[in-house]
Amino acid sequence: MVIVMAPGASDSDIADVVTHIETHGGQAFVSRGVMRTIVGVVGTEEVLETLDAGRLPGVAETMRITAPYKLVSAQNHAKRTTIRVGGVPIGPDTFTLIAGPCAVETAEQTLESARMAKRAGATLLRGGAYKPRTSPYAFQGLGVEGLRILAEVRDVVGLPIVTEVMDAADVEVVTEHADMLQVGTRNMQNFGLLQAVGACGKPVMLKRGLTATYEEWLMAAEYIAQRGNLDIVLCERGVRSFEPAIRNLLDVSAVPMMQRLSHLPVIVDPSHAAGRRDLVVPLARAGIAAGADGVMVDVHPHPEAALCDGAQALFGDALDELARAVSTIPALLGRTSAAHLAG
Amino acid sequence: MVIVMAPGASDSDIADVVTHIETHGGQAFVSRGVMRTIVGVVGTEEVLETLDAGRLPGVAETMRITAPYKLVSAQNHAKRTTIRVGGVPIGPDTFTLIAGPCAVETAEQTLESARMAKRAGATLLRGGAYKPRTSPYAFQGLGVEGLRILAEVRDVVGLPIVTEVMDAADVEVVTEHADMLQVGTRNMQNFGLLQAVGACGKPVMLKRGLTATYEEWLMAAEYIAQRGNLDIVLCERGVRSFEPAIRNLLDVSAVPMMQRLSHLPVIVDPSHAAGRRDLVVPLARAGIAAGADGVMVDVHPHPEAALCDGAQALFGDALDELARAVSTIPALLGRTSAAHLAG
Amino acid sequence: MVIVMAPGASDSDIADVVTHIETHGGQAFVSRGVMRTIVGVVGTEEVLETLDAGRLPGVAETMRITAPYKLVSAQNHAKRTTIRVGGVPIGPDTFTLIAGPCAVETAEQTLESARMAKRAGATLLRGGAYKPRTSPYAFQGLGVEGLRILAEVRDVVGLPIVTEVMDAADVEVVTEHADMLQVGTRNMQNFGLLQAVGACGKPVMLKRGLTATYEEWLMAAEYIAQRGNLDIVLCERGVRSFEPAIRNLLDVSAVPMMQRLSHLPVIVDPSHAAGRRDLVVPLARAGIAAGADGVMVDVHPHPEAALCDGAQALFGDALDELARAVSTIPALLGRTSAAHLAG
Amino acid sequence: MVIVMAPGASDSDIADVVTHIETHGGQAFVSRGVMRTIVGVVGTEEVLETLDAGRLPGVAETMRITAPYKLVSAQNHAKRTTIRVGGVPIGPDTFTLIAGPCAVETAEQTLESARMAKRAGATLLRGGAYKPRTSPYAFQGLGVEGLRILAEVRDVVGLPIVTEVMDAADVEVVTEHADMLQVGTRNMQNFGLLQAVGACGKPVMLKRGLTATYEEWLMAAEYIAQRGNLDIVLCERGVRSFEPAIRNLLDVSAVPMMQRLSHLPVIVDPSHAAGRRDLVVPLARAGIAAGADGVMVDVHPHPEAALCDGAQALFGDALDELARAVSTIPALLGRTSAAHLAG
Repeated sequence: MVIVMAPGASDSDIADVVTHIETHGGQAFVSRGVMRTIVGVVGTEEVLETLDAGRLPGVAETMRITAPYKLVSAQNHAKRTTIRVGGVPIGPDTFTLIAGPCAVETAEQTLESARMAKRAGATLLRGGAYKPRTSPYAFQGLGVEGLRILAEVRDVVGLPIVTEVMDAADVEVVTEHADMLQVGTRNMQNFGLLQAVGACGKPVMLKRGLTATYEEWLMAAEYIAQRGNLDIVLCERGVRSFEPAIRNLLDVSAVPMMQRLSHLPVIVDPSHAAGRRDLVVPLARAGIAAGADGVMVDVHPHPEAALCDGAQALFGDALDELARAVSTIPALLGRTSAAHLAG
Repeated sequence: MVIVMAPGASDSDIADVVTHIETHGGQAFVSRGVMRTIVGVVGTEEVLETLDAGRLPGVAETMRITAPYKLVSAQNHAKRTTIRVGGVPIGPDTFTLIAGPCAVETAEQTLESARMAKRAGATLLRGGAYKPRTSPYAFQGLGVEGLRILAEVRDVVGLPIVTEVMDAADVEVVTEHADMLQVGTRNMQNFGLLQAVGACGKPVMLKRGLTATYEEWLMAAEYIAQRGNLDIVLCERGVRSFEPAIRNLLDVSAVPMMQRLSHLPVIVDPSHAAGRRDLVVPLARAGIAAGADGVMVDVHPHPEAALCDGAQALFGDALDELARAVSTIPALLGRTSAAHLAG
Repeated sequence: MVIVMAPGASDSDIADVVTHIETHGGQAFVSRGVMRTIVGVVGTEEVLETLDAGRLPGVAETMRITAPYKLVSAQNHAKRTTIRVGGVPIGPDTFTLIAGPCAVETAEQTLESARMAKRAGATLLRGGAYKPRTSPYAFQGLGVEGLRILAEVRDVVGLPIVTEVMDAADVEVVTEHADMLQVGTRNMQNFGLLQAVGACGKPVMLKRGLTATYEEWLMAAEYIAQRGNLDIVLCERGVRSFEPAIRNLLDVSAVPMMQRLSHLPVIVDPSHAAGRRDLVVPLARAGIAAGADGVMVDVHPHPEAALCDGAQALFGDALDELARAVSTIPALLGRTSAAHLAG
Repeated sequence: MVIVMAPGASDSDIADVVTHIETHGGQAFVSRGVMRTIVGVVGTEEVLETLDAGRLPGVAETMRITAPYKLVSAQNHAKRTTIRVGGVPIGPDTFTLIAGPCAVETAEQTLESARMAKRAGATLLRGGAYKPRTSPYAFQGLGVEGLRILAEVRDVVGLPIVTEVMDAADVEVVTEHADMLQVGTRNMQNFGLLQAVGACGKPVMLKRGLTATYEEWLMAAEYIAQRGNLDIVLCERGVRSFEPAIRNLLDVSAVPMMQRLSHLPVIVDPSHAAGRRDLVVPLARAGIAAGADGVMVDVHPHPEAALCDGAQALFGDALDELARAVSTIPALLGRTSAAHLAG
C-alpha cells in the first residue's frame, strides 16, 4: 500500500501517518520527493485492512499497488514525475542533454569539456571523479580532488553536476559537491550504496545493471525510494549481448517499457552502450525518438589522450550532429528543450 | 577478390571473366544486381596473384576484400546500394515503409490491411502466405491461395508485395507471385533456401537470425549473393534476450553497424521485435532515427480476431502516429520518402 | 489429447481411431514409434468432450496433455522411451557413445576415425556428408559420395551411422544410407525439414537451436512426431552466450529438465559446445554425470589436417580419458553401457 | 611483472623488494597467501627493464605475465593453489563439500542444517547472515546476530564457516566471526568491497557475476589479490540466460577454463544456479565431473518454511544422493575427499 501525501502536508501530518501504520502493526517507509511525499506500507493483509489513513490530515490518496515495487510504480501516478537537478528539469515535458568527460582528469580538460557540452545544448554536466574500472591497474579517478574540480567548473560554466559514487562511505562527500549522484551499472544491486543514496537528500541517477531485468532495476530504485528519496532518474546504458562487434546492446525498448511501469524519468546513455564514437549519435537519436526524457553522452576535447573511454567521446562534427538531433527530434514528440527552461 | 563489372558489361564480357578465373585455377561466383554485376573469386594467394582481370572488357574494378564476406561487403562500394522492388526504392537516399497483415487470412482482410498500409504511407505491402510457427498446431498460413490473394490485392491497391518463403521447394511459386521474397529469422542459416532465393531473380529480404552475429548475418547474405542475386535487403527484427517483459530486443546498433560493414540496405521490423502494440511505434521511431532505410510493420483491421500475432498489429491512432513519424523524422536525416518516388 | 495404442494394435485399429476423431470434427496425427503408436488429437473443447476413443479396440489409454507439445510430452509416459538405432539402444537404462569425424573427407579418414570411435567404446558412428557452414566459401561436405563412404565404413566396422540432413530434398537419399538422421542446430526450426524427417521412417537426432528454449525445442520435436515419427533423440550442444572464450555454453541443466518434460532420450554433444579439444572431455564427463543418455563427440586421426572443426576433434590421450569416463561414470548412475547390449 | 618470494622470505626481504621497485619508478602490490607472497609490479616497459629484483634476498622467481590479471594468473604457477579454510583444504588434490542453510534464521535451524551438512560429507558450513535480496521488502538476514549463531554452531559441530559480506563497512565484524568471507554475485565488481576483503586476512570466496566474462571475474579476483590476499576461491553459480524454465544457467565450462587461466581453486554452487531442488543434484554431479575443486549447496531441515530460497534447499533423499556422488565421482578423477584430510 502507498499513501500519497498532499503537496502541503506538514512533517507532523507525516509523523501521524507513520504512527497510525505502526500502531496497527505495519511498517512505514517515508519517501520525500521535491513535489510530494509518499509513505509506503508493508504488512499482512489483515494489517492493511485495518488501516484508515485516508481520513488523516494531509493525506491526498491511499492506493494498493500490486507490483512488487511500490513507491516507484506508475500505478499511483496519473502523470510521470519531473525531477529537478539544480533547477534543471528531467521529465515527460522536456528533453535534457547531459554531457561531459567520462573521467575528470584535470581542471582544464574538465572546463573545456563543460564548454563543449554547453555549446551542444547540455544543461547538466557529467564527469567521473570515482571511476569503476574492470582492472585494478587502470586509472581509478581523482577522487575528492575530482569533485572539487567539478564544483569549480560548475561555478564557471553554470551547469549543475552529475557524478558517480561507488561506495557508501563516499556518499557524504559526493553529496556535498554534486547536484546529482550517479549509481553505476556494476553497483545497481549494491544495496548498501542504494540505501545510502536513498538518504542523501540529492537526486540520484540509477544506471541499469549489465543484465538486469526491468523488474530488478525497479526493485533497485525501490531500495532508494524506501529510504526516503523519490528523486530518481533511470538510465538505460546497454545490456550485455552475444555480439562481439559492439560493447553493449542499447535496449531502446527499455525507454517506453520503464515509462509505463514507473513514474520516474528515463534517460539513455549511448556512449557507454556503444563504446565507439561512430555509433553514439545514431544511438542517441534512437533513444530520443523512442521517447527518452534525456540523453547523457561523453565529450572530450582530446579523446586520443583521454585516461578513460576516449574511443567513445564525442567532439567536433559528431557533437554538432548530436546538437542538431537534440534541437529537432524532441520537438516532434511534443517536448521542450530543458535548455530553455533551465536558463 | 571481387571483380566489379561496368554498368554496360555484356554477358559475354562476364563469361570471359569467369573463363579467365577458372583457367587460372580459381572459382568464380557471378552476382547480378539491378545496377551492376559482381564476380567473386575464391582461390589461393598464388591463384589470385596470377589473375589479370582488370584488363578484360567490361571490368570496372578489381578489389581485394579482407572481410570474410566479399560480395556484400562495404569495402568495394563508395556508396551504399539502392534496391528496387517493383519500382520502389530501398536505399540510402529514401525512406520506405512496408506494411501489411502478419498473415494473409482472407481476401477482405488483406485488402483492408493494404488500404490501411497505403494510407499510412507504405509503398510496399507485406503479408504472409507461409507462416513459420513454433507450434505445429498453430495456423500455418494459406499457402498458394494466400499468394493469389496478395497478387490480387496488389492489382487493386498498387503496392508491390513482400512475402515469406520457408522452403526451397516453394521458391518458384513464390517468385511467380511476389515482388520480393522474405527469408525469415528461423531460416537465416537454411543454406539450401538461401541458395534457392539467390537464383530466383527477385529481390530478397533477409531477416536476422534470433541470435545471429553481424558477421553470421552477412555470411548468410553472401550465400544469396554468391548464387547471383545482389538485390538483398537486411532486416533487423530483434534478438533474443534475458528480459521476460519483451518478446525480442530490437538491436538498433545493427542499423549503423550493418550499414558500415555492408553496402546493402538495412531496415527494421519493430512489430516482431516488440510483440506488443504499445512498443511498436516507439521502436519504429528509434529505428528510423538510427538511420534505417525503411521500416516494416504489421497492420490489421481487426487485430483481436487475427490468426497470427494480433497483439502487435497496428491500427487506428497508433498507425496514425507511425505515419507522422515516417513523414517527419527521415527528412531530418536527409531522406526523401519512397512514397514520392514510387508514385 | 493423446490416444496411446496398445503394443499389439493393428493398422485397422489405428484407422478406426482416426475415423472416430475426424467424424467428431477433430484432427488426428498418428505417430508410430518402435514400441507403440500414439494418436494426437487437435480440436475444440467441445470436440474433445464428445470423443469416446477409450472404448475402441487397440486403444491402451486416452490422456489429456496440458503442455503445448503433446506427443513428446512426458505427461503420458510412466517411463522414458528407449530408441533403437540399427539395434543400438539410446534411453534411460543405458549409456551410448556416438563418435566419428565431424566431416567425411575420405574413405581412409572415415575408416580410421570409425576404428578410433569403436576402440573408445562407441556403438554408433557419426560423420557429416552435408555440412552446414557459416561461410559459403568453406568446405560444404562430400554429399552423396560422403553417404556412400559412411555406408561402406559401417559394413567394415559394424557401427550404425548417424549423419546430418540439411534439406528436405535430401531426406530420401540420406534415409537410404543412414541409420539415424540428424537435424542440426541451424535447422531446428526449418519446419519443412522437420516434417520430411517425420515421415522418413528412421530415427532422428534433433539438435537444440543455438538459442532455443526448452519449449521451442520440444515444439520442434512435436513437428517430427506429428508426421508419425516418435523415434527422436534430443541433443544438447551448447547455447550462444556472452563469453568470448568459449564457442558455445553447454547447458547441462537441459539434460535433467528435458528428461522431466519429455519422454525422449537426451544426449550431449560437448565437441560442438566447446569448440576446443581441451574442454571436450570435462564437458563430456559433466554431461554424463548430469544424467545424459549418451554423448556424441568428434574424433579425427589427424585433426591438424581436418577440413572442418579440427580444433575440437579428440585423439590419443584425450580419447582414452573419455573412454575411461564412459566406462566408469554411467555405472555409478545405474546405467549399462550400450556397447554390451549392442554386441 | 610478478615477483614470487621464496617460502622463507622475511618481511624485510619483501620491504626491500618494494623499495627496489619504487625507487625505479614502478608501483608494487604485495599479496600474501598462506604458502607464499607475491609482489605485483606495475610500470612502463622502461621501468620494468631497469629492475633487477631477481638478485635480491628472498626472491624465488621473477616473471613477466602477459594476461591483464597478474597475481591470479596461472602463468607463474606450475601447480594450482590449495587454499586452507580453518584447516580444510580446497584445491586440485581434494574435493570439498560446503553445505548449510541459505540464510541463518534461528540457532536451531542453523544447528540442524549443520548436522545435515556434516552427515552428507561437508567439511565447511555455509550460511548467510547478510542476505542480498532483490526486494527491499524481503527478509534481509539477521546481521551480526546471525554471525554469532554461526560461530556457536561451528563450536558445536566442528565445521569452519563461510558467510557472505555485502558491505565494506561490515568486513571487520564478519572477519571476526567467519573462517571464509564470501563476495556475492551482485558485488563481484563492488571494488570497495573487493579491496576491503583483500585486506581482511581471511580466505575469500568470490562468486562470478551474473553475466561476468572469465576475464572480468579474474580481474575482480585481482583486486582482492592486489590488496595482499591470495587466498581466493572462485565460485561458478550460473549465468543469466534466455531460458525461462531455469533461474540461471550453470556454466560448467567455467570449471576447466578458470583452472587453466588461473592458479586459484574453482568450485560450483548448483543450488543458486538451479533455483529448484530437482536440478541441484544433477548439476552438482556435473560440476564434480567437470573437475570442480568443491561444491557448495543449500540444505534446510524444513525447506517449506525457509525464509530464503527454500525451493532449492536439499534434504532427505536428494541430500543422500548428493553424498553418494561426492563419495564416488571425485575419486574417479584422482581426488581425495577433504573430509579425510580435515579430520
